[in-house]
Amino acid sequence: MKTYIGIDLGGTNVRVCKIMANGNILQEVKSLSYGMEGPEVVIENLVKLIKSIDAYQECSGIGIGVPGPVDTVNKVMKISSNLKGFTDYPIAKVLEEKVGLPVFVDNDANVAGLAEALVGAGKGLGIVYYVTISTGIGGALIVNGKLISGKSGYAGETGNMIVDPYRKPFNNLNPGASESEASGRALTRKGKELFGEDAIQNAGDVFALAASGNSDAQKLIDQMTTDLAILFSHVAHIVDPHMFVIGGGVLKSKAQWFDTMIEKFKTFVHPGMRDVKFEVAKLEEPGIVGAAMLPVSNGL
Amino acid sequence: MKTYIGIDLGGTNVRVCKIMANGNILQEVKSLSYGMEGPEVVIENLVKLIKSIDAYQECSGIGIGVPGPVDTVNKVMKISSNLKGFTDYPIAKVLEEKVGLPVFVDNDANVAGLAEALVGAGKGLGIVYYVTISTGIGGALIVNGKLISGKSGYAGETGNMIVDPYRKPFNNLNPGASESEASGRALTRKGKELFGEDAIQNAGDVFALAASGNSDAQKLIDQMTTDLAILFSHVAHIVDPHMFVIGGGVLKSKAQWFDTMIEKFKTFVHPGMRDVKFEVAKLEEPGIVGAAMLPVSNGL
Repeated sequence: MKTYIGIDLGGTNVRVCKIMANGNILQEVKSLSYGMEGPEVVIENLVKLIKSIDAYQECSGIGIGVPGPVDTVNKVMKISSNLKGFTDYPIAKVLEEKVGLPVFVDNDANVAGLAEALVGAGKGLGIVYYVTISTGIGGALIVNGKLISGKSGYAGETGNMIVDPYRKPFNNLNPGASESEASGRALTRKGKELFGEDAIQNAGDVFALAASGNSDAQKLIDQMTTDLAILFSHVAHIVDPHMFVIGGGVLKSKAQWFDTMIEKFKTFVHPGMRDVKFEVAKLEEPGIVGAAMLPVSNGL
Repeated sequence: MKTYIGIDLGGTNVRVCKIMANGNILQEVKSLSYGMEGPEVVIENLVKLIKSIDAYQECSGIGIGVPGPVDTVNKVMKISSNLKGFTDYPIAKVLEEKVGLPVFVDNDANVAGLAEALVGAGKGLGIVYYVTISTGIGGALIVNGKLISGKSGYAGETGNMIVDPYRKPFNNLNPGASESEASGRALTRKGKELFGEDAIQNAGDVFALAASGNSDAQKLIDQMTTDLAILFSHVAHIVDPHMFVIGGGVLKSKAQWFDTMIEKFKTFVHPGMRDVKFEVAKLEEPGIVGAAMLPVSNGL
């Protein structure tokens, strides 16, 4: 079975793993990423880590998952707030020259979705749409095993999709953007507005209040399920996926929203679309496995 | 150059054309479709028309464009109000047996989009999203020359996408569905509500009133451009296309809405997405040419 190298490159830490085509992790090395010290230091460290992998030259390719949008055609990051100097830096090209293997780059939500589509919950299906609902909302579209990144890497930017254009905008996102209305951060914000700064620290506090019978908290969650149902309806009418795979921290409170959201979704699509599957993401390490799947998505 | 047979099968008429891979129409035959007389009569007539095409056996495949959603996996129509008895009828399989060529089926908006992507405005581009804005609103997603039809043929069902969930529903579509808010029929309905049944016969009458300086008509068109901008924003965040291709009758009044809509679109996407191209559909016969391109989309 072919093997690949997956790299999870964050602003603070970096992990490099040797991974099989079926998603099994064979070997892991990690270190600080030196993200604020500039590309040269980051790359030198990365090359050292890669070369410490057993028989790294026999791997079929390298994939890197990074935070933020990526121009996958030119293989460069477009925004790199946690990795100083990496905007438009030719990270893939430089690594290819230093390591001698083909290198691909994509953002962390895209690679997580790719992992779920290839070796996770959506394995073997034609069209998989992945949505992670956590602090923010991200997503990824995978068609016949290939990640669709779009013209400039913005495909799957699910968090900026409008669910109601007449709400207030937040954080440079659209008015009524799904991330501003239905993410963990959104639920926290709305909870603080209703119950006070001190009563709510995170989305879990809102879910706990709702579970204890608080009707205002229940209304917040009811609105969240409507907003998510509209979001999934948007996606369904564009790509009609075989499966939606849902990941992210808000799944910790799955019992309080997941099934309700799906029932509402069914009211927002044509009758023939109501049987689309919604599955929970099942991989323990979608980020690093998905990075390793980038060469697979590109035919290697 | 390879040749294909394209069929435009409607409830009243049917056209069968021999078409080159570059979209040139070489030969055309047509007749009534006998759409209300049942599959046997329709098929017998179709076979006769196909066999009247010069050297039809040398064509690489047959594509059929039909009105309404199609299950492209099983190659059957899911709703066939204008073609009696065709719901779930194995039209492709029956034709394949009688003619001896591979047959593919898809709905008319999908085939029109495919034509524009392969040999029209979007020729040579990776990701093309086609939207037709006419009496209704339809669409199609084409990735690397292949039509994405989805699990059950509902990909590209652009007309049912929600642009504002708090408006009234019409015609079994979603509340605030784009077709109910920004199509020719929608503009006609809104115009009649404002100006009376007799004053408005079609969308053109609303555009004419707006052009003459009527501020209420101008507001309707202003709302239409906002709703369309939101619709295109939804699509952009999912597939980040290289080009949007726009067709349909509402383009007759292009000067009054097209550029405004694009400017509004730019306010509803991330900065890096603002340079996506919006082009007007350029084929004279997208329906029949797109039908002939279905075998191409399927690798023939």
